Amino acid sequence: MVPLIAEQLAAFERRIEAELRSDVAFIQAIGSDLVGAGGKRLRPSLAFLAGALLEAEAESTMRVALAVELLHSASLLHDDLIDDADTRRGTAAAFRRYGNVVSVMSGDYMLARVLGILAKTGSSAFTALMSDTAARICEGEVLQFQMATLETWDRPTYQVVIEGKTAVLVAAAVEGVAVVSDASDATREALRAYGMAFGRAFQLRDDFLDLLGDPATLGKPVGGDLREGKVTLPVLGLIEDGNAEALAIVRRHAGDPGDVERLIELVRQHGGDRRTQSAIAGEVEAATAALASLPPCPAREALMALPRAELDRVA
Amino acid sequence: MVPLIAEQLAAFERRIEAELRSDVAFIQAIGSDLVGAGGKRLRPSLAFLAGALLEAEAESTMRVALAVELLHSASLLHDDLIDDADTRRGTAAAFRRYGNVVSVMSGDYMLARVLGILAKTGSSAFTALMSDTAARICEGEVLQFQMATLETWDRPTYQVVIEGKTAVLVAAAVEGVAVVSDASDATREALRAYGMAFGRAFQLRDDFLDLLGDPATLGKPVGGDLREGKVTLPVLGLIEDGNAEALAIVRRHAGDPGDVERLIELVRQHGGDRRTQSAIAGEVEAATAALASLPPCPAREALMALPRAELDRVA
Repeated sequence: MVPLIAEQLAAFERRIEAELRSDVAFIQAIGSDLVGAGGKRLRPSLAFLAGALLEAEAESTMRVALAVELLHSASLLHDDLIDDADTRRGTAAAFRRYGNVVSVMSGDYMLARVLGILAKTGSSAFTALMSDTAARICEGEVLQFQMATLETWDRPTYQVVIEGKTAVLVAAAVEGVAVVSDASDATREALRAYGMAFGRAFQLRDDFLDLLGDPATLGKPVGGDLREGKVTLPVLGLIEDGNAEALAIVRRHAGDPGDVERLIELVRQHGGDRRTQSAIAGEVEAATAALASLPPCPAREALMALPRAELDRVA
Repeated sequence: MVPLIAEQLAAFERRIEAELRSDVAFIQAIGSDLVGAGGKRLRPSLAFLAGALLEAEAESTMRVALAVELLHSASLLHDDLIDDADTRRGTAAAFRRYGNVVSVMSGDYMLARVLGILAKTGSSAFTALMSDTAARICEGEVLQFQMATLETWDRPTYQVVIEGKTAVLVAAAVEGVAVVSDASDATREALRAYGMAFGRAFQLRDDFLDLLGDPATLGKPVGGDLREGKVTLPVLGLIEDGNAEALAIVRRHAGDPGDVERLIELVRQHGGDRRTQSAIAGEVEAATAALASLPPCPAREALMALPRAELDRVA
């Protein structure tokens, strides 16, 4: 991702593979799949950049990167289970027990490994941060579901949802390094604010593209969130304005032909696209500003550049 | 459960309710349900008795009890999900998304709370013990599934499965108190051995009753494990002996009429019932013997009496 931390990222791949080793063949297979999948390693990259910025001890930084990435992977696995069930709703397809066991137990196994890393780190403050982060991820996930079920769509709740989905874990990656390296409260707070704002921008971008992106670029049809009953920022203004047509589409999970296309039209008419873009710009601005008080160095510049790249994708 | 620790158990109920509080209504509701359900609180009782035995600090003992019970509840919730899916296999019933969200996310929320308790306890050794315990629970669960899928039924693997399902968490309840109160290695090992043997006896008893118990007393039909593809100790001897009829029944998950009754007959003919009873007696004996080196006191006698009660149920 960033040449500055290429060596740490290579070491990270070896370490995370070791963390997921198990004598149980099925668990080992899942672990290998996950390591093979790789991904962008955004959170570990952030941890390593924060480590470079704070001149933190290498092994402590590595442990933060591993703990945060494993918690992220566990939450993806548990999310997949929920989404998987949802896409099968109303179909006669038998629910595959194998998929269930894989998702739940391999996610739990990763959480067990997080505990092991916390034990080695021996920092109560970092354990407390991870506890808070994990609780907020769960609360965000359940709240998203509760919003759809109780039809309580509002901006403050949406904010809590996107923070739980993405921001708290992005923040934990950089704040965690501050915690384990005993940085000052001001530094910790600056990195936390950066991570939260970047995380919100990241999730807002995801929500924007899910409805308003180019299906060819995305590699999937738009409107996935709508079909899962999720109301995101581009749509929220219409709902708050009491737009009856939009509300009807949201309530039937865009189940009628042409629903997604019509809602996109309504969103553009009401400026939901521009409002979301400017919300993202605001968060990117906030993320960059949060680091202004920290000493300038290549790591800080690299951290500042990352959120801007997110903004560029929806401009 | 035991008058000796009545006060601690009452305090425990208040504390666990507080642990499960959340601003998210759906999570709060699940927490209340769980607290309301109560259960026998076997693991907290064991922790409090170990605390009395070791004259451990009250708050440290309480935290072990809370952490172990929350991990237990989380694993039950995640187990339920898997079993739930299984009973629906082959049916046209839509999988209920609500049930999924509840099970996965409220289990995860409890795991997040475990992390919070570990942060307050500040003992790396206890965190490491909980990490190991959680990993072995997952491994046991996946291994049980792997046995059925790969049709690899043998006694050593069965041992790992029952340890993961029950023994490691029973052991963590008593060993955890030894760890947080800095007991000697010998004391820690004695309590661990007690908990492992008691836990194995407990799970063997469960497995015995599931096939050979009285449906009226159990409140459910016998043979539940068979229908989920699980081979337990009463049946294992038949499989190891290559009994073709038993193997066929096991492979079709006792799906034909009369299968369960026929397998019970075969088990009794081959002495699988008596072998299981004597395995339980052996574990109860081992649990009691493990505590022999510790100083005699009412708490030790209470700990010794608990496994015997399990044995009585299958005599």
